[in-house]
Amino acid sequence: MSANSAAIHALRKAGKDFSWEATPRLPYKEEGAAPFKAISRQTLFSDPRMAGELRYFEIAPGGYSTLERHAHMHGVVVLRGGGQCLIGTAVHTIKPHDLVTIEPWTWHQFRADTTTPLGFLCLVNAERDRPLMPNEEELAALRRHPAVREFLDGG
Amino acid sequence: MSANSAAIHALRKAGKDFSWEATPRLPYKEEGAAPFKAISRQTLFSDPRMAGELRYFEIAPGGYSTLERHAHMHGVVVLRGGGQCLIGTAVHTIKPHDLVTIEPWTWHQFRADTTTPLGFLCLVNAERDRPLMPNEEELAALRRHPAVREFLDGG
Repeated sequence: MSANSAAIHALRKAGKDFSWEATPRLPYKEEGAAPFKAISRQTLFSDPRMAGELRYFEIAPGGYSTLERHAHMHGVVVLRGGGQCLIGTAVHTIKPHDLVTIEPWTWHQFRADTTTPLGFLCLVNAERDRPLMPNEEELAALRRHPAVREFLDGG
Repeated sequence: MSANSAAIHALRKAGKDFSWEATPRLPYKEEGAAPFKAISRQTLFSDPRMAGELRYFEIAPGGYSTLERHAHMHGVVVLRGGGQCLIGTAVHTIKPHDLVTIEPWTWHQFRADTTTPLGFLCLVNAERDRPLMPNEEELAALRRHPAVREFLDGG
């Protein structure tokens, strides 16, 4: 047992379908806290002695993460399947091992393809601010970009 | 261009063989600084606004990283191929998507199989101490474990 009373496993073997030993599949966020669909979260590395955390998110076919922004950054490594992400006002198609950098205060949302899941690692600071969702005005401004509107409406 | 004068790419597409756009393959360490063999480093995420860094290391068949320890921790996600790692006095066989946690001051070394490379992501604090290599006494103590001796001698 470690000082922080959680057992530290030197090795957690990967199982089927992006599961890992001693690494529960959790809800993405508290239900009702924000709009999202069909997405789970596994915390791969989080320790008080590490300044960064690494999480694995998986979005089921047709699902999406919350459209949000915040002061902290994200570093994303796609691991599974395919989909699209909105970064600022650009929509990118992403596939395994592509890298996505989300700079501070940049709107972002991930969306899985309709036929395949989208799984990705996300690096984030352990100490971070809470995400903000767009207000009506901000959302209207985003939707004035045709590619963004198409993405927001489901691709 | 960002404030820190390096271009930030929102998307860096994965290329062949675990290469990425705008992400050079670098030497693992300065040549001659420590014992290692046939290993490269690609820094996937490193930014003054992020407290953690994510690097991709790839060890060619038969190669190995430096045997070392330090105060900072590592969180490792295997991405490619296979091999073994020494963590403390335990030797683990590792394959893609296995997770390895290296706690502070734990001896560790990675070794690729003789017929396949070993590629892995490594999460680390941006601010960290320098690794130490074992002295003669520490190395002798490690080598008293038969499995460790076998690993150190090349598996």
